[in-house]
Amino acid sequence: MGTLNIGLVGYKFMGKAHSHAFRDVSMFFDLPVKPVMKVLCGRDEKSVAESARKFGWEEYVTSWEELVQRDDIDLIDITAPSNVHKEIVLAAAQNGKHIFCEKPLALTLEDAEQMLQAVTEAGVKHMIGFNYRRVPAIMLIKQMIDSGKLGQIYHFRGTYLQDYVIDPSFPLVWRLRKEIAGSGSLGDLGAHTIDLARWLVGDFHEVIGMSETFIKERPLPTEMTGLSAKSSLDAEMGTVTVDDATAFLARFKNGALGTFEATRFAAGHRNMNFFEINGSLGSVRFDFERMNEMEYYSTEDAEGYQGFRRIQTTEAVHPYMQAWWPAGHIIGYEHTFIHEMKDFIESIVEDRLPEPNFRDGVECQRVLHAVEKSIDNRTWVQID
Amino acid sequence: MGTLNIGLVGYKFMGKAHSHAFRDVSMFFDLPVKPVMKVLCGRDEKSVAESARKFGWEEYVTSWEELVQRDDIDLIDITAPSNVHKEIVLAAAQNGKHIFCEKPLALTLEDAEQMLQAVTEAGVKHMIGFNYRRVPAIMLIKQMIDSGKLGQIYHFRGTYLQDYVIDPSFPLVWRLRKEIAGSGSLGDLGAHTIDLARWLVGDFHEVIGMSETFIKERPLPTEMTGLSAKSSLDAEMGTVTVDDATAFLARFKNGALGTFEATRFAAGHRNMNFFEINGSLGSVRFDFERMNEMEYYSTEDAEGYQGFRRIQTTEAVHPYMQAWWPAGHIIGYEHTFIHEMKDFIESIVEDRLPEPNFRDGVECQRVLHAVEKSIDNRTWVQID
Amino acid sequence: MGTLNIGLVGYKFMGKAHSHAFRDVSMFFDLPVKPVMKVLCGRDEKSVAESARKFGWEEYVTSWEELVQRDDIDLIDITAPSNVHKEIVLAAAQNGKHIFCEKPLALTLEDAEQMLQAVTEAGVKHMIGFNYRRVPAIMLIKQMIDSGKLGQIYHFRGTYLQDYVIDPSFPLVWRLRKEIAGSGSLGDLGAHTIDLARWLVGDFHEVIGMSETFIKERPLPTEMTGLSAKSSLDAEMGTVTVDDATAFLARFKNGALGTFEATRFAAGHRNMNFFEINGSLGSVRFDFERMNEMEYYSTEDAEGYQGFRRIQTTEAVHPYMQAWWPAGHIIGYEHTFIHEMKDFIESIVEDRLPEPNFRDGVECQRVLHAVEKSIDNRTWVQID
Amino acid sequence: MGTLNIGLVGYKFMGKAHSHAFRDVSMFFDLPVKPVMKVLCGRDEKSVAESARKFGWEEYVTSWEELVQRDDIDLIDITAPSNVHKEIVLAAAQNGKHIFCEKPLALTLEDAEQMLQAVTEAGVKHMIGFNYRRVPAIMLIKQMIDSGKLGQIYHFRGTYLQDYVIDPSFPLVWRLRKEIAGSGSLGDLGAHTIDLARWLVGDFHEVIGMSETFIKERPLPTEMTGLSAKSSLDAEMGTVTVDDATAFLARFKNGALGTFEATRFAAGHRNMNFFEINGSLGSVRFDFERMNEMEYYSTEDAEGYQGFRRIQTTEAVHPYMQAWWPAGHIIGYEHTFIHEMKDFIESIVEDRLPEPNFRDGVECQRVLHAVEKSIDNRTWVQID
Repeated sequence: MGTLNIGLVGYKFMGKAHSHAFRDVSMFFDLPVKPVMKVLCGRDEKSVAESARKFGWEEYVTSWEELVQRDDIDLIDITAPSNVHKEIVLAAAQNGKHIFCEKPLALTLEDAEQMLQAVTEAGVKHMIGFNYRRVPAIMLIKQMIDSGKLGQIYHFRGTYLQDYVIDPSFPLVWRLRKEIAGSGSLGDLGAHTIDLARWLVGDFHEVIGMSETFIKERPLPTEMTGLSAKSSLDAEMGTVTVDDATAFLARFKNGALGTFEATRFAAGHRNMNFFEINGSLGSVRFDFERMNEMEYYSTEDAEGYQGFRRIQTTEAVHPYMQAWWPAGHIIGYEHTFIHEMKDFIESIVEDRLPEPNFRDGVECQRVLHAVEKSIDNRTWVQID
Repeated sequence: MGTLNIGLVGYKFMGKAHSHAFRDVSMFFDLPVKPVMKVLCGRDEKSVAESARKFGWEEYVTSWEELVQRDDIDLIDITAPSNVHKEIVLAAAQNGKHIFCEKPLALTLEDAEQMLQAVTEAGVKHMIGFNYRRVPAIMLIKQMIDSGKLGQIYHFRGTYLQDYVIDPSFPLVWRLRKEIAGSGSLGDLGAHTIDLARWLVGDFHEVIGMSETFIKERPLPTEMTGLSAKSSLDAEMGTVTVDDATAFLARFKNGALGTFEATRFAAGHRNMNFFEINGSLGSVRFDFERMNEMEYYSTEDAEGYQGFRRIQTTEAVHPYMQAWWPAGHIIGYEHTFIHEMKDFIESIVEDRLPEPNFRDGVECQRVLHAVEKSIDNRTWVQID
Repeated sequence: MGTLNIGLVGYKFMGKAHSHAFRDVSMFFDLPVKPVMKVLCGRDEKSVAESARKFGWEEYVTSWEELVQRDDIDLIDITAPSNVHKEIVLAAAQNGKHIFCEKPLALTLEDAEQMLQAVTEAGVKHMIGFNYRRVPAIMLIKQMIDSGKLGQIYHFRGTYLQDYVIDPSFPLVWRLRKEIAGSGSLGDLGAHTIDLARWLVGDFHEVIGMSETFIKERPLPTEMTGLSAKSSLDAEMGTVTVDDATAFLARFKNGALGTFEATRFAAGHRNMNFFEINGSLGSVRFDFERMNEMEYYSTEDAEGYQGFRRIQTTEAVHPYMQAWWPAGHIIGYEHTFIHEMKDFIESIVEDRLPEPNFRDGVECQRVLHAVEKSIDNRTWVQID
Repeated sequence: MGTLNIGLVGYKFMGKAHSHAFRDVSMFFDLPVKPVMKVLCGRDEKSVAESARKFGWEEYVTSWEELVQRDDIDLIDITAPSNVHKEIVLAAAQNGKHIFCEKPLALTLEDAEQMLQAVTEAGVKHMIGFNYRRVPAIMLIKQMIDSGKLGQIYHFRGTYLQDYVIDPSFPLVWRLRKEIAGSGSLGDLGAHTIDLARWLVGDFHEVIGMSETFIKERPLPTEMTGLSAKSSLDAEMGTVTVDDATAFLARFKNGALGTFEATRFAAGHRNMNFFEINGSLGSVRFDFERMNEMEYYSTEDAEGYQGFRRIQTTEAVHPYMQAWWPAGHIIGYEHTFIHEMKDFIESIVEDRLPEPNFRDGVECQRVLHAVEKSIDNRTWVQID
C-alpha cells in the first residue's frame, strides 16, 4: 500500500483536530493509501516542536514557504488564520500539492475566486473544512432530501448560537479582529450554516441582513488557547471590528425561504449549531450539541401517530458509523474531521474532486459577501 | 356582590373559548363582581341557539346591532372575524359598553387607530385578546425581565410554526382570504409574536420582511369547524390571497435584534409558538406546545453548574397558579382565556385600563403594517 | 332531555376537581342526560356553603347520611378521605344510588371487597377515580396495545415521583397518617401505577416490595389546603405512620416483568407519573408532567429511521380530543375528571358498567395488599 | 521520559476501544511516561495480525501465556471474554505485570476474590474496566455527591436498557451463553449500574431480584462482529443460558433505596445506561446516550425558579475536559477508555492503586452474586 505524506500548517485548535484525524483515520477506515504525518508547520519553533511531538508528526518546520516546496509532501492542510489562507494555497497549488483548507476560504470573495482558479489550473485536489457535512446525522439528512423524503422544501431555519464572548471583559482575541478573521459571527458561525443550507436546500437567490457589535471595546489579550483567552486587569482596550451577531433572510432559487442567525451573545448556548428544514412531506431538525441525533417528522406516518422521531444516528446503516461502535455508543466532535480526511484521501487516490471543495468555499463566500453588502446598503442583494 | 352582564359576539372556536372562560372564571378566582353569561350573538339562529344552550348563555340574539344597544349588557366581547371588529367596536363604544376584542384588532392600521380613539373617547374599558400574555410561564418571563434577571436584552427569536394547511387539498377557508382575515400567517400567528416581543423586549425600531404563498389555489370549502375544514372532490378552486409564511428581521429601540417567523407550512408543528430571549445575564425559552414549562439559563449560576433549567410553572408562586391545582398538575390552552377575563373584570371594577388593551392592538398593527410595507417595497421600514 | 342529579361528598382538592368536571362536561360533550349539580356535602358548614356557592352547587348539606337518602339524588360522588369511603358507599348503595368513588377504594382489601359486593347486589353503577385512564395519551396507549402495536409485552416500568414532603418541616398532614390515608406513597401514588399496569399489561402474578419512611417525626399541621399545609414553629411533633417511598418488583400472568416505584422524596419531581412499556414490536413512554404527549417507538419503522416519536395527543383523532381545541392546543389535569364524568354518565344512561369500576378498585387493592404483605414478610407474595 | 510497554489481550470490540485509548491518550494528556503499543494478543493469527497493523501495535502474538512472561511488557490489558480473565490475571500477576481487566472481573465471586488476592500479593497495580466512571458527567456527579450538593441520598434508580437481541432470530452469540459470559443482562449491563451505585451512593446492604429469558432458543451464529452477528436460515438452534432481563431492589447501608433494571429487550433503547439519584438537597439524572450532559436539580435554587438544569459537561472546568475541545463540542464513547488509561498510567508511575480496581470488581461481583442467589432462592440476600 502506498503512502500519502501530509504537511499541516497550524497546530492550535484546528491543527490539533486535524492532527488527530490523520492519526486515527486509518485505524477505523480501510484506506487505499497510508496517510503519513510528515511535517507540522508553525511560526513559533518551541510550540510547534512540542505539538509535533505530542500529536505524532515526524518533523516540524517554521516556514510554510519551505513546506509547500518539499518534494516529500503530497497534501498541504491549512488550519492557519484566514488571512494567510490565500498565499499558502497559491504557493501549494503552484507546487502541485493537494490542498485541504479550513473555512472560511478567504477574507474576500475575490481572494476565494483566485484560490479556486489556482487549484483548478494546477489540477490538484482540494477540499474545504465545512466539517459539519461529515456529521453522520447531517449526511443522513442529505440522503433523505436527495431521495425525496422531505418533498418540496419550504423552509430552512438555521441558528448558530454561542456565548463565549458574552462577558464584556473577554479579551479582544484575533477572532474579533476583522483584519485577521475577516468577519465575526457571520464568517465564523454563519458560514457553516450557509454551507449546509446550500448543500441541503440549494442555491441562494437573494439575501438581506442586519448585524450588530454589542460590545465595542475589549481589553487586549495576554494569552489565547483554543477559543478561550485571558487578559490582565490593566490591559489596554481595543476596538472590536467584527460583528457579534448577524441575522439575515434569504430566498432560495427553488422558492424556499430561509432565516439565518449567528451570534456569540446567546447566553447558555455553548455551540448550538441548529437547523430545521420543513418540506411538503416532512421535517428534520438537528442540533450539534446533540450531534449523534436528529429529529424527523413524516407526514406519511399514520394519522394519530405522527410526531418528531428522535433518531440516534449511531447504527451501522448510518453514514460512517459502520466504522465505529455498536449502536447507542456515540462519537464526538473530532470524528467529523476523521470523516473529512477519509473522504479527501479516498478522492485523491480515486482521482476525483471531493465535496465540499473550493468551489463550495467560493459559493459560501459569495453569500457571505452578499449578506455583508445587504447590511451595508440596507437592501436586498441577489447572489450572482 | 354586583353583577357584570356579558354579551358575546361569535360562538365558534374563539367564542367557545371565551364562553368557557366566563363560565369558569368565578369558580377559581375571587372576583369583585359576578360575571353573568347574558347573551350570545351569532348570525345563524339555529347554531347560535344551540351554542347558547350548550355553553350556558341565558339568551341568544342574531343581531349584534341590537345587542350593543341593550341596557342590560355591560361588556361586549367580540370574537367574530376580523373584518367586522371595527363596526362592532364603534357601536359598542358609542353605547358605553366595555369591550373585549379578539386580535387582530382590525384589518388596517387606520381602522385600529380609529377604534382606539372611539373607546378612549367613550371612556370605556377595553382589552385585546393577546391571550399568550396570560400563560403563567410567559407572565413569569415578563416578571423576570422587569426585575432585571436577564440583564440587557440582545436577542429576541420568535417562531410561530403550524402545519394545518400544508396539504394542498386543504380548502380555502376564511383565514386564507385577505378580505376577511386581513392577513395570513403574519396577522394570525406573527401578531402574537409581535405583541409578546413588544411586551417583553420593548418597542420596535425598524423591520424588513419577506413572505410567500406556497399554495396559490385551493378548493372552496363545504364545511368549517374550528381550524379544520372539508371540501368536496369536485370543488371549484379559489385563490389564496394571504401569506402562507412570513419572516422578518427587526431592530428594537433598545438595540436588541429580533428575528421573526410565522408559517403554516412547518410539517410536524401543530402550534409551536416558540420564542427565546437572550440577555447579558441569562436566557429564557418558551414553547406553547409545552405551555406549563419554560427554560431559564442564568450566567450567575456557579461555573460548571450552568445550564438551561426546565421550570414547571405550576406552583402556587407562579402567576395565576395559586388558583389551580397542586404543583406538577398542568393547565391547558383555555386557561389563558380565563386569566384574561379575570384581569379584565377586575380592571373594570377597579376602574383602570387593563393590558393588553386597544393601544397594544394599535401598536401591534403598526408593526404588522410596517412589515407588510417592507415586503411590498423590499426595504427596511421604520416604526414611526 | 332528562337530568341526573349529583350529590358530591367532599369539597377540597378532589371535590373541587369533580365539581369542575360536572360544571363543564356538558359544555364540551353531547351527553344523553343533563347532570345537575344538586348538593355538595361537607362537615364544616361555613366552608361547604362557601364552596357550594363558588363551585355552582344548588344546595349544600353537612351530613352525608342525610344526603344518600335523598330521593332527588341519582349519583353519589365520594371524594372524602379514604377512611370514610366504605360507610358512605354501603349506605349509598343501600339507597340505590349510582356511585363514583375516589381511589383508593378502601383502607383494606376486605373493605374493598365488601364495597364491591354492596354495589353489585344493589345493582347500581359504580366507577372508581383512576383518572389517569382518562388521559388521552394513555387511552391511546391502551388502544395501541389492544390492537397489537406493541406485540408481546416484556416490560412495564412505572415510577410515580413527587417531592412535596421532602422538607422535614412539612407538617404531618392526613395523607401521612395511616389511620386516615391507609397508606402513603404506595396507596396514593403507586395505586395509580398499579391500576395502569393492570389495565395496560394485564393481571399481576406475584410481587415483592420494600418501603421506607425517611422522616419519621413531623410537626402537627395548623392548616391544610390541597396538597400544601402549614405548621407553627412550636408545633408538637407526631409520628409519620405511612411509607414515604415504596418500590416493588412484579411478574405479570402473561410473563411480563414489572418494576414499580412510588415516592414523595424525589427532589425536582412535582408529579412525575411516568411509565414505559416495552413489547416485541415497540415501546411507549408517558410522563404526566407532559400529559398531552407520549413517545412511541416501532420496530417496524424502516431501518435507520427508527426512533422514539413524540406524539402530541391533541388531534381530533385522539381519544376525547374531538371535543376540545385545535391540534397543538393542550388540555390540563382537570380534563381527566371531565372525561371520567362523561363516561360515567353515559354508562348510567346506557345501563352498563363503566371501567374502571369497583372491581378494578378491588383488584388494585389486592395488589396493594400483596405488596404490603411482601414487605412485612420479606417474601414474594402471589396475587390470589 | 520513560516508557510503559503494553500487552493487550483481545482485539474485538473492547480490544479496539482499548487500542484506540493507548493510541490517543498521550496526544491529549501530559503523561509522566510514554505508553508503547507493544504487543497485541489473539488466538486467530490472521485476524490478530491484521488488527495489530490497523490499530498500530508493534507486534502480535497468539499465546497470552507467552505474552505475560515477556520481560519487555509492563502492563497486561485483558479484554478477552470473561471466562478466561482469571487464568490470565493469575499468570500476569505472577509475572509482576500491572493489570487492567475488563469487567466483569470473573464468572464467580470466588474467582474474583482469588484474582484480587493474586494481584495484591504480587504487589502490582490493577484496574477494572468500569469505564462509565470516566464519563465526565458521572465524575462530576461523584464530585457533587462528595461535596454534599445532594445532601442525604434517598433514592438510586438505575436502568440499563438495550434492545439488540430483541429479534428472536438474532443468533446465540457468546454473550448469551453462561459458560462464556457468566451472566446475561445482569453481568453485562447491570454490573455497570451496580458499580456506579456503589461508587456514588455507597455499599449495598441487601438485594432481591427477578430475571427472565424471554427467548429461550436461538439459531447458532455464523459470524460475530462487535455486538452484531449473523446466522444462516437453516442454522441449528441452541439454548440461551443467560438472563435477557433482570431487575432487583436494593437497600444501601446508609438507608437509601435502590431499584435496578437491566434488559436487552427494551425496544428503542440502543444503549440507555440511565440513572437518577435523589437526595435531600437535590437530584441528578444521567443517560449515556447523551453522555455529554447531565441534569441537576437543586432544592436551594430560589422558589419559583427551581427546575432540572441540563448541564453540558464540555467545559474546561469539567473532569477531563480541559484536554479536549471548546465548550459545546462533545466527546464520544471511546473517550471513556482514554480517561481510564490516563488514570491507570498515572497511578502506576505514582505508585498508588487506582480506582476502580479489582477490589471494586470483587465488590461488584459480590452484589451480582447476591442478586443471583436472591433470584434462585426467591428471598432477600444480604451482602456480606
